[in-house]
Amino acid sequence: MKKVQLAKGTRDFLPAQARRRKYIFDVLERSFQRYGFQPLETPALENLDTLMGKYGEEGDQLLFKVLNSGDFTRALGEGGISGKSLRELSLLLCEKGLRYDLTVPLARVVAMNRHEIALPFKRYQIQPVWRADRPQRGRYREFYQCDADVLGSGSLLCEAELVQLYDEAFSELGIPVKIHINHRKVLEGLAQEAGISGRFAEFTVEVDKLEKTGPEAFEQALRSLGLEEAAVRRVLGHLAANDPERIAVNDLARTGAEEILSVKRFLSGTPLKNELVFDPGLARGLSYYTGCIFEVKPVGVQMGSLGGGGRYDELTAIFGLPGVSGVGISFGADRIYDVLTELERFPAQLGGMPRALLAPLSEGALLYAFRLATELRRQGIPVDVYPEVARLKKQFAHAERLEVPYVVILGDDECKAETAQVKDQRTGEQHCIPAAQLAGHLG
Amino acid sequence: MKKVQLAKGTRDFLPAQARRRKYIFDVLERSFQRYGFQPLETPALENLDTLMGKYGEEGDQLLFKVLNSGDFTRALGEGGISGKSLRELSLLLCEKGLRYDLTVPLARVVAMNRHEIALPFKRYQIQPVWRADRPQRGRYREFYQCDADVLGSGSLLCEAELVQLYDEAFSELGIPVKIHINHRKVLEGLAQEAGISGRFAEFTVEVDKLEKTGPEAFEQALRSLGLEEAAVRRVLGHLAANDPERIAVNDLARTGAEEILSVKRFLSGTPLKNELVFDPGLARGLSYYTGCIFEVKPVGVQMGSLGGGGRYDELTAIFGLPGVSGVGISFGADRIYDVLTELERFPAQLGGMPRALLAPLSEGALLYAFRLATELRRQGIPVDVYPEVARLKKQFAHAERLEVPYVVILGDDECKAETAQVKDQRTGEQHCIPAAQLAGHLG
Repeated sequence: MKKVQLAKGTRDFLPAQARRRKYIFDVLERSFQRYGFQPLETPALENLDTLMGKYGEEGDQLLFKVLNSGDFTRALGEGGISGKSLRELSLLLCEKGLRYDLTVPLARVVAMNRHEIALPFKRYQIQPVWRADRPQRGRYREFYQCDADVLGSGSLLCEAELVQLYDEAFSELGIPVKIHINHRKVLEGLAQEAGISGRFAEFTVEVDKLEKTGPEAFEQALRSLGLEEAAVRRVLGHLAANDPERIAVNDLARTGAEEILSVKRFLSGTPLKNELVFDPGLARGLSYYTGCIFEVKPVGVQMGSLGGGGRYDELTAIFGLPGVSGVGISFGADRIYDVLTELERFPAQLGGMPRALLAPLSEGALLYAFRLATELRRQGIPVDVYPEVARLKKQFAHAERLEVPYVVILGDDECKAETAQVKDQRTGEQHCIPAAQLAGHLG
Repeated sequence: MKKVQLAKGTRDFLPAQARRRKYIFDVLERSFQRYGFQPLETPALENLDTLMGKYGEEGDQLLFKVLNSGDFTRALGEGGISGKSLRELSLLLCEKGLRYDLTVPLARVVAMNRHEIALPFKRYQIQPVWRADRPQRGRYREFYQCDADVLGSGSLLCEAELVQLYDEAFSELGIPVKIHINHRKVLEGLAQEAGISGRFAEFTVEVDKLEKTGPEAFEQALRSLGLEEAAVRRVLGHLAANDPERIAVNDLARTGAEEILSVKRFLSGTPLKNELVFDPGLARGLSYYTGCIFEVKPVGVQMGSLGGGGRYDELTAIFGLPGVSGVGISFGADRIYDVLTELERFPAQLGGMPRALLAPLSEGALLYAFRLATELRRQGIPVDVYPEVARLKKQFAHAERLEVPYVVILGDDECKAETAQVKDQRTGEQHCIPAAQLAGHLG
């Protein structure tokens, strides 16, 4: 028999992992809801029409395409596959693809339901996406995105809420972070001041790489963009500024800086738990941001950003609905999982874990165990019952693998006396307890 | 611009629907957890090796297949597509497919992780599956399955727990149901008694159809299976029995009936809220059930079954792990949604909905609104803020679409006095309340 395997770049989540992931998603979902974001779910399968051309040429290649049902060769016509490019062929063979992110589906939903959806529309969405990337450590072909976006308002109150949402969610998760903020206009101002407005895209690419490659490589890159030595020095100086008041090198930069100050003004009445830092070197390489840009980095752990986002305009214009401004943030659930593991910050008892394994030692005790379990469950206490009579050693081994805090041993004596032997798995202590008091003891 | 559309057979869930779906999934998940079931998540993408041949020939055709990345034509070889069947071609073009159900992935996970997973393994799984069925009313190409299974124990305590789980989950949802139970051996016994053991598969197909097509069509079908008139009468009589004690027409039927009585014995100590009925005509057309069979039907609503399941053997044998017996049940989330809508049983206030919209009437009030919202959210009360200064009428219209119970009106006077005008959207009453008392008022 051929060895069964997972598809490349995909993962199973066994109970211990699945519970930890649920914990993260639950914290994020509750945060989203506290801030008035509403849930949205979109299908995994989208028409390729909807997806193609939205993520650049590379993105198109990374889309998983789904073979048409029925006679998928018919669309190829007489010529079959000959003389057609891979792109052409794939579009003849496939009409549908898998969701690549949660942003394009959001734009589609708002454009398609424009009369039903009240703007400003605050939505959150926690769903998997698929990318035909080469799998490598920490990069998967199927992974969850956790997004919150506000569509239809240009107010900087939205940015302030999203900064606060980041702050509170990471506090609740127990991960100390720095929230970096910048503004596209600050970067545009710096490029203008250096005289390379025409090469803004290349400039931001270099700014983006600065932290990774270091100042020397950066200086060299700026020189190759045509900058004089003095201008290179000035750019480096500006990028080191940590106060938006001091970056107003021209009107453009001033406009950006003032928006950041407005965001800070909203936040000034109710202090954040984490630091919000102005970071003029934050570019996030994403050409579609038009206003504020965010990124969240963990403090004290070697790990890339745990989330990012920013303001964009005209997102829904690709689907025929112009004039809608939006701002959104994203949480990187896989990295959050890794940081929580490294910091050992996952709660010891996660929601929904059974509090006890009921261990029956005789046929009579099996019926008794079932009745006790029913009563406990009806009182809202999750418990498990070993479903058959088995040696105590075997049942204890099972309890250990389940990581339940208590084992409730039930033999004929307990059955007759309506009691239970309750063993605390952490302390090793064991007590005989009347059945009626079991809920209070385990709960 | 071409009109943007959803892929055929798929759906968006806008906030009101998404919240109602989450409510259903939450009730089911908490029920699963109370009974000691553990969460499992498997990827949407599976190797076709894993999926093909597991659902019959029709199932293979209904699998969504995912086009290989890179040069997908290479595997076709010199001949291209000519001379190859659609099946051959699809397997050359595609290595991966979309999950068709949650049962085969469960078997794969247990077989792949046999040393890590402690048996008996109780797992629940709530995830979407995909089928390239012809879409029609109530049938979708992408839909959720909600399954709970116990693998690795033959104990009838498992069956009793699953009946109880059905009972409690539907009670909590507020849907009155009948839980039907039968046993494969009862049906085998009836077929043997009628002398058509050799045509058991056809017999169960007819039994399955009986409710839909009526007794006349059924009688005719039995006659065409070669049954004498007297045998037809006897079969009809047996199928009308509602007591397992009375169906012991032979050893086979007796064995099945006794197992059902054992399940009932477990349940006798703690009465169910819904009726459990023995239904010898329940077949569920699924050839893989080997023991008890379940089905749940709503009472007082015209709707097919809301769930079903049963015991099966050797599920993991397809992946090289023999000797594991299992029993499981499934909930039909889409139909449950429809029944709750018809019965108007969805709670009016669903979890996570904002309690209020804060409505700022001036720039100063906007900052004040942000501060009040922060304080409310930090006390765990979900609220929304209209993000910009707007006319009251517009803000009230927004509040109505959000279905928030309260609107908190904030102007310069409220800002100065640290108060808020709170309007109850249901009663229309409006009161001026000190800011410090707002949480108590809204919570």
